[in-house]
Amino acid sequence: MEAAAAKPVIRVAAICGSLRKASYNGGLLRAAAEVCEQSIPGLRVEHVDISGLPLLNTDLETNGGAGFPPAVEAFREKVRQADCFLFGSPEHNYSIASPLKNALDWASRGKNCWADKPAAIVSAGGGFGGGRSQYHLRQVGVFLDLHFINKPELFVKAFEQPPKFDSDGNLIDAEIRERIKQVLLSLQAFTLRLQKKD
Amino acid sequence: MEAAAAKPVIRVAAICGSLRKASYNGGLLRAAAEVCEQSIPGLRVEHVDISGLPLLNTDLETNGGAGFPPAVEAFREKVRQADCFLFGSPEHNYSIASPLKNALDWASRGKNCWADKPAAIVSAGGGFGGGRSQYHLRQVGVFLDLHFINKPELFVKAFEQPPKFDSDGNLIDAEIRERIKQVLLSLQAFTLRLQKKD
Amino acid sequence: MEAAAAKPVIRVAAICGSLRKASYNGGLLRAAAEVCEQSIPGLRVEHVDISGLPLLNTDLETNGGAGFPPAVEAFREKVRQADCFLFGSPEHNYSIASPLKNALDWASRGKNCWADKPAAIVSAGGGFGGGRSQYHLRQVGVFLDLHFINKPELFVKAFEQPPKFDSDGNLIDAEIRERIKQVLLSLQAFTLRLQKKD
Amino acid sequence: MEAAAAKPVIRVAAICGSLRKASYNGGLLRAAAEVCEQSIPGLRVEHVDISGLPLLNTDLETNGGAGFPPAVEAFREKVRQADCFLFGSPEHNYSIASPLKNALDWASRGKNCWADKPAAIVSAGGGFGGGRSQYHLRQVGVFLDLHFINKPELFVKAFEQPPKFDSDGNLIDAEIRERIKQVLLSLQAFTLRLQKKD
Repeated sequence: MEAAAAKPVIRVAAICGSLRKASYNGGLLRAAAEVCEQSIPGLRVEHVDISGLPLLNTDLETNGGAGFPPAVEAFREKVRQADCFLFGSPEHNYSIASPLKNALDWASRGKNCWADKPAAIVSAGGGFGGGRSQYHLRQVGVFLDLHFINKPELFVKAFEQPPKFDSDGNLIDAEIRERIKQVLLSLQAFTLRLQKKD
Repeated sequence: MEAAAAKPVIRVAAICGSLRKASYNGGLLRAAAEVCEQSIPGLRVEHVDISGLPLLNTDLETNGGAGFPPAVEAFREKVRQADCFLFGSPEHNYSIASPLKNALDWASRGKNCWADKPAAIVSAGGGFGGGRSQYHLRQVGVFLDLHFINKPELFVKAFEQPPKFDSDGNLIDAEIRERIKQVLLSLQAFTLRLQKKD
Repeated sequence: MEAAAAKPVIRVAAICGSLRKASYNGGLLRAAAEVCEQSIPGLRVEHVDISGLPLLNTDLETNGGAGFPPAVEAFREKVRQADCFLFGSPEHNYSIASPLKNALDWASRGKNCWADKPAAIVSAGGGFGGGRSQYHLRQVGVFLDLHFINKPELFVKAFEQPPKFDSDGNLIDAEIRERIKQVLLSLQAFTLRLQKKD
Repeated sequence: MEAAAAKPVIRVAAICGSLRKASYNGGLLRAAAEVCEQSIPGLRVEHVDISGLPLLNTDLETNGGAGFPPAVEAFREKVRQADCFLFGSPEHNYSIASPLKNALDWASRGKNCWADKPAAIVSAGGGFGGGRSQYHLRQVGVFLDLHFINKPELFVKAFEQPPKFDSDGNLIDAEIRERIKQVLLSLQAFTLRLQKKD
């Protein structure tokens, strides 16, 4: 069908706010990539690493704020190339994890790289399953000009029985995997809806 | 002097969320230190540097979460020694600056170093003068068990005329200096009130 | 013109969170209606009164939660008929005004009347010009499934000189009127973008 | 006993944000009153009804803002008489219930009746057990000048098995009753700590 040719793959940049290797939030994003590959044609999740970014310091900018350290510039380019975003957002002390906030801020400097793109959030954690971080992240998105999907939200209570993750942080829970799929389908639909042009 | 013996100096750890040299928020904290020295007996502001902390990554912890990288351990010790806190909190993308969030999180790991201490916030920035960051910071304080003063709040509109700061980020506005003093007096009073023991 | 036939007018329900007669937020909404009529073809603002709603009490619901008091039912019908929303949102004690929250909640009961519709916010007030209410309202919108425009935001500092409103709460400031127009144009564009169907 | 004479009873005004008869949040507050009577000497919970307050409309104020409708004046007097507050705060659409916000706002008008008093929150609901309402309420408390306890927080997941409430909204869960007691003890301790005078 010709229409298929006209419908390029939507690239989802997956960004994890936790830098630890066995992060549960990282596990959610790996599961998202697998779900896409296995069962969501037209959507592709690509992990974007943020562990090498320096702590935000605008004194590191060059060229009147248009130049950035190499690691920052490489990250900004990946953000620009993405069609939409999937954040794995741990809750640290009732707000956004600093590595994620750091990445969000670097790619907003100068010409905002996030502007006008759809986004979704998944979280794992104790208590509210990372929930408090999501609402702060949504407020950040107002200024970044991100368009978050409203539903479904996904909060994974990482410490409830039975175990949801193995010791490497891989998701081992089929029901949560299905809920990740619903998040991705909603993100795909919202992205297509917002991409429509006259 | 007997009275001095009975009333030790209250140590305020001043923590600036911006790492740039000429930071306006840093300028507010420098002004706070001067104000204390000049006109608030019993209160002493000490700047705590957070620029050398690594991005939060709990894989860097040792000894089952009780050991930290040297820069983190040194920072945690300064937090433990403080009687209360004064945050210079820039607003980045409608929330807390990542260097500040990073510092808050490192000192909360394992045995929370912030617990049960009073705190105040000053901000400088555009729009709301850094205001949106303050409410996110207050929510973080619930889990950290910080006791923020409610009043007065200080939001400095850094870009309005006449200039409030010189090119090195030093505060040059007498009215704002007076308002910083009121914040400090409120922090001092709240600290004394909370320190009272039976 | 044929295109005009294919492009029905977008109905904006304007809802004011303040019940006082000379409300500045009401004045912003009246100005919005005038701006639309004078200069935005295809967009029509209709004021929806919320002063007659009872305080939310689900014991007033009938028919297993599907029936509502007459004033509530009439309000819900107006919400259902709207294509999008413009909230005049005063900030009361750093959050949403109770009459507005009351209206939002009544129309969410049972079958949510707000779902999947675009929205924008304008505010007038002291301090942040009503700003703190807007971020709480945006969080409410996540559950209501409203799609808020990100930009432009409008915060009117109602008490700064020169006067922005006359004693009846009518907007008398041309620059703010122009900024209201930009909010409306953004709301119109976002509504059209979200309405596009395959 | 002399000590008893020197230690007057602390009056806790309990305010429920839900007006429905069988409200779970109301049930939490009734349980709090019972717990105090049975096992916390020096603390007394008194329910303050807010169902009769009109929707906030400052046109109802008289005497230049110093006079209020009789129901409002009676409520304000009860707020003034309390030493501290316990809010039963349902989460409606991710924020504060309108009847509670309405009460908070009425008692803040003119001379703020809440100022400088300690407070605690308990919630029951789905999802986060009312949690999102609590953080909005805490932000409101900054302007009202309430001093919220940080810990413990109480979020009751009202719809999980086994049942936590009977059909009249009475709490039937012993573990939650014990957690309410811990909230009350923390509120009592914080109130005493803040009341200490030189």
